[in-house]
Amino acid sequence: NVLTIPKNDPIAFTFFTGYMAMLASSVFFFAERSSVDGKWKLSLLVSALITGIAAVHYYYMRDYYLATGENPTALRYIDWTLTVPLMCVEFYLLTKAAGAKLNLLWKLILASVWMLVTGYIGEAFTDGSSSHSFIWGALSTLGYIYILYTAWFGEVAQLAKSSQNATVEKGVRTLAWFVLVGWAIYPIGYMCMPGGWLNTAFGWESSNVDLFYNIADAINKIGFGLVVYGIAVNSKSATA
Amino acid sequence: NVLTIPKNDPIAFTFFTGYMAMLASSVFFFAERSSVDGKWKLSLLVSALITGIAAVHYYYMRDYYLATGENPTALRYIDWTLTVPLMCVEFYLLTKAAGAKLNLLWKLILASVWMLVTGYIGEAFTDGSSSHSFIWGALSTLGYIYILYTAWFGEVAQLAKSSQNATVEKGVRTLAWFVLVGWAIYPIGYMCMPGGWLNTAFGWESSNVDLFYNIADAINKIGFGLVVYGIAVNSKSATA
Ligand SMILES: CC1=C(/C=C/C(C)=C/C=C/C(C)=C/C=O)C(C)(C)CCC1
Ligand SMILES: CC1=C(/C=C/C(C)=C/C=C/C(C)=C/C=O)C(C)(C)CCC1
Repeated sequence: NVLTIPKNDPIAFTFFTGYMAMLASSVFFFAERSSVDGKWKLSLLVSALITGIAAVHYYYMRDYYLATGENPTALRYIDWTLTVPLMCVEFYLLTKAAGAKLNLLWKLILASVWMLVTGYIGEAFTDGSSSHSFIWGALSTLGYIYILYTAWFGEVAQLAKSSQNATVEKGVRTLAWFVLVGWAIYPIGYMCMPGGWLNTAFGWESSNVDLFYNIADAINKIGFGLVVYGIAVNSKSATA
Repeated sequence: NVLTIPKNDPIAFTFFTGYMAMLASSVFFFAERSSVDGKWKLSLLVSALITGIAAVHYYYMRDYYLATGENPTALRYIDWTLTVPLMCVEFYLLTKAAGAKLNLLWKLILASVWMLVTGYIGEAFTDGSSSHSFIWGALSTLGYIYILYTAWFGEVAQLAKSSQNATVEKGVRTLAWFVLVGWAIYPIGYMCMPGGWLNTAFGWESSNVDLFYNIADAINKIGFGLVVYGIAVNSKSATA
């Protein structure tokens, strides 16, 4: 009854690496809070919470996967239900100094809830048909596109531009790249599920759903946090 | 023997999200204590304790529910026995600067103990009859109304008004809204139990008791804490 990671199972491998990386990142962001200016402490705390929450969920997902060999769909979406809104909080905090209203935060959170609820229906309640996977995936993508638009051209982008702070502007642009490239890995994973396009057209196995999700989570959760950390460190030296 | 969350069980879902959200909130309130003015540190600590206590109870309730599929009634009321009085402490701390006496705190605590003891009898010792559920529910509601009255029109409201501090006044008003709307979700859950009005009249299943309690707990415990946090942050910038 000891923790055994099969040597040839990349999914188990990434569950474990993911768990450890999230935990370490959380410790890192907590510890570095004391090294940044007061106004950045809150952002770093949110970064630490995102990776910390993920660490707990990865702990359970890893064990679930090792014991059953199945995708821990419910745990995955429970994690996202908490961490994606917290990423919206990061956007809000970065643009707050430039005048962001709570209203912006609520719109972003609403879009993510839409994206996740429809995605969950698509994934958890699938009958294995292509139409189920396609319809709910498309509905979910609407929420994703809303966030993408807001980050690149909408309120977030405009506020960052008007912030008159080159570090914040560059940082928000980097986060927008994460949303465009890093977040796009999730729908790829989704399409590996039974009935999904990559599954039916190319025979990608449904166990790959979690491989993509694990890779994407590591990139986005830790990467997002590091970008925010970079902003905090650089804008400190800029004013010092 | 691994943690398994059924995909189609919203109660299990909310038990787990609730657990994680309480834990994260507790970490948040603890960490942010260092960023608020000295006079608010105590309030933030109480917020952290409320969500921290809840996190531990949710950990056990979640496992109990997953293992038995039953409502963890005893654990639920154990949690409330500690967290509801602590919420009364929050009201007391907010109005203390305006002259609240310990006496106010005791009256609020007494009313909550009354509300919880009668509610527990109604729920734990039910014979499934409508009369049992109704009588004890009505008795419990008297305690609830007392707290509601105090927050809206009684001592708490009057002290907040006389505090001459717009942030505190607005904050206490927001908390009063929580007591009116957020706390009202609990009796809805109660009435889903066997013999409860929503159960007998509309056939709402008794498993929904915990669904409502979980949603209400997340709103009230975390929301209450965030309102207090907002007061602390805003009244800081107002005086600075
Ligand atoms: C578009 C789309 C999806 C997008 C998911 C995303 C974008 C998830 C992002 C998660 C993050 C950023 C977590 C980090 O904490 C789903 C739901 C797979 C369903 C298919 C369509
Ligand atoms: C009125 C009423 C009830 C009220 C319960 C309340 C209001 C509980 C509040 C709990 C909180 C705020 C916990 C947060 O930490 C009961 C007992 C269900 C019994 C039925 C009548």
